[in-house]
Amino acid sequence: MSNIPELKPSFFIGKNGDGVISFGSGQPDLPPPNCIYDVREDSEDFKYGSVEGLYELRKDLAKLYPGSTAGSFIITNGASEALDLTLRALSFKGKKVLVPRPYYYSYPHLVEFAGMVPVYTDLVEGRLDIDDVRKKIGGCVAMLINSPSNPTGRVEAMETLYEIEKLSNFHNTYILSDEVYKDIIYERENYLIKGPKVVTINSFSKTYSMCSDRIGYLWSTDEALIDDIKTIKTHTSMNTNVLGQKKALRAMNSDTDFVKDQLKIWRKRRELMYNTLLEMGLDAWKPDGAFYIFPRVPDTKKVVWELYNQHNVIVYRGEWFGANDRIRLSYALDEDKIIKGLKILGKYLGKI
Amino acid sequence: MSNIPELKPSFFIGKNGDGVISFGSGQPDLPPPNCIYDVREDSEDFKYGSVEGLYELRKDLAKLYPGSTAGSFIITNGASEALDLTLRALSFKGKKVLVPRPYYYSYPHLVEFAGMVPVYTDLVEGRLDIDDVRKKIGGCVAMLINSPSNPTGRVEAMETLYEIEKLSNFHNTYILSDEVYKDIIYERENYLIKGPKVVTINSFSKTYSMCSDRIGYLWSTDEALIDDIKTIKTHTSMNTNVLGQKKALRAMNSDTDFVKDQLKIWRKRRELMYNTLLEMGLDAWKPDGAFYIFPRVPDTKKVVWELYNQHNVIVYRGEWFGANDRIRLSYALDEDKIIKGLKILGKYLGKI
Repeated sequence: MSNIPELKPSFFIGKNGDGVISFGSGQPDLPPPNCIYDVREDSEDFKYGSVEGLYELRKDLAKLYPGSTAGSFIITNGASEALDLTLRALSFKGKKVLVPRPYYYSYPHLVEFAGMVPVYTDLVEGRLDIDDVRKKIGGCVAMLINSPSNPTGRVEAMETLYEIEKLSNFHNTYILSDEVYKDIIYERENYLIKGPKVVTINSFSKTYSMCSDRIGYLWSTDEALIDDIKTIKTHTSMNTNVLGQKKALRAMNSDTDFVKDQLKIWRKRRELMYNTLLEMGLDAWKPDGAFYIFPRVPDTKKVVWELYNQHNVIVYRGEWFGANDRIRLSYALDEDKIIKGLKILGKYLGKI
Repeated sequence: MSNIPELKPSFFIGKNGDGVISFGSGQPDLPPPNCIYDVREDSEDFKYGSVEGLYELRKDLAKLYPGSTAGSFIITNGASEALDLTLRALSFKGKKVLVPRPYYYSYPHLVEFAGMVPVYTDLVEGRLDIDDVRKKIGGCVAMLINSPSNPTGRVEAMETLYEIEKLSNFHNTYILSDEVYKDIIYERENYLIKGPKVVTINSFSKTYSMCSDRIGYLWSTDEALIDDIKTIKTHTSMNTNVLGQKKALRAMNSDTDFVKDQLKIWRKRRELMYNTLLEMGLDAWKPDGAFYIFPRVPDTKKVVWELYNQHNVIVYRGEWFGANDRIRLSYALDEDKIIKGLKILGKYLGKI
């Protein structure tokens, strides 16, 4: 036991070849829309672009966000930079950030790198405990929300989101709503949380399988905050890759069946994952969105190591997401591999 | 006089059409190498890339940096992100950063956004005053150098750079050497400053006229620092745009005459700019590198505004670069426009 290494998620990067079955992936295994392969730049496109992003892209995004204009958006190097820039801008206004736990593993780091301090609110059954939020939100300059959630796969109830909107208004607390899985949702449409202090973070990576391009964005109707973020980005990274933005523009204007067709695949895999884990007797929440399932498992340090080292199966430790007693399984892999991998997992867990 | 607006550099962005002659540009007006238009991605290229960047690109860069390996590099969203990440990583070690003044206009902001404090050392005749550096470097965790310099166009003397290397070793002060203009240098080859605490920041933007792709990099043989920076980037932006990196790889392996041919154009324009300003009786340093000239001019606030407002000519206030009594002229524009623009400038300055 004592010789089990302390792994980090980065240990598993690039380890999915050679017969390994990886439930680790945080990115779609499905291809992007065909139309984006054809997007080219002309010579003017090699000049610096505007810091806030291509006007055409922001203008088309504005059609999807009620009450907004192109000026309500900043295009960023993925949702990661959108979160980072927003936290850095808000760090001049206050230091405490309310972070639901379990969380996407970058959140505590991003809060820390912005010189801020996380205050945790523990989820109950994978969803926000609104009473606990109510107790803690007052002293916080911002609160992070991630619905659909990585790693829990949960979507927040509408009543909870309405209540968050009210609390945001009452306490003047910014809501950073990370909705990168907004198009991978099984139970209802995504609800866009609203309000003067709401910043929505999004991305083209998950919806259009174009992770490497790093095209994310943030949306807010708080003009002063948009200006502050633009000022920071002017110095820290300038414009976001222009060709990537042109591909994002093409993708979002492509055949709308693309997103629907992918959702069908995700939904089928979700059923397979959830039902198989239930049959194995595992305690897991049924995912409402995203492509993760987060079952409870004893001794995750040993389980994660032995599954990889002895059985060529990669799963992620819940500890990396703030939950010691769980493992995260992504279903961004072929159905065949899911079936094979879950068999190995079941057999292994049956023994311990 | 009192109704002259307080302009910022961003005021002039996008204002170079419609008969305006802009000496404001910070990017080459020359085209990138033809070969990079053909670079395409295959479907695997849409997956997340490694945070530190394409191995092939880092391996080829290592050939240009003695004593280094692919592991000595991190590919970033332009030189801006390289500077930002390095400062953020160093902010955990100390707070004071020595910044030569006049400076590239982002430097004080980047230092501040990293939660650090700039300590200024004033240049003498546009170059480092090594005695002043010697007095101030001791308490600083890092020092910024920018040779060739934007805005001064100056290149530091070899003796100065050797002395900086010694001071870095003696005081354990990191040297952040921003060498984005390393290939646009007229008087000698670029000298790559060396040492265990040296971080070199570079970019493909100026050398290969591919600003919009935002492909920069940093180089250091300090493995612990490289690890720290990689950790920060993992959370704040993840991989740099993969297709952009493939274009950078193609560009650096293209016809070497490309860089030489562009240098000939820059050199010719430098002569034209410098000689014309001298004839106009202006006090200006002869540029040793980059594509800027930084003459002394009275009442720059009025001059910059009236030149734009009354004469359609854009020049930048030295104040934005830490020098109240100068204006910055870029020569990233056609010779015809340079001649025409300088005539207008000369006539205007002759009157005031």
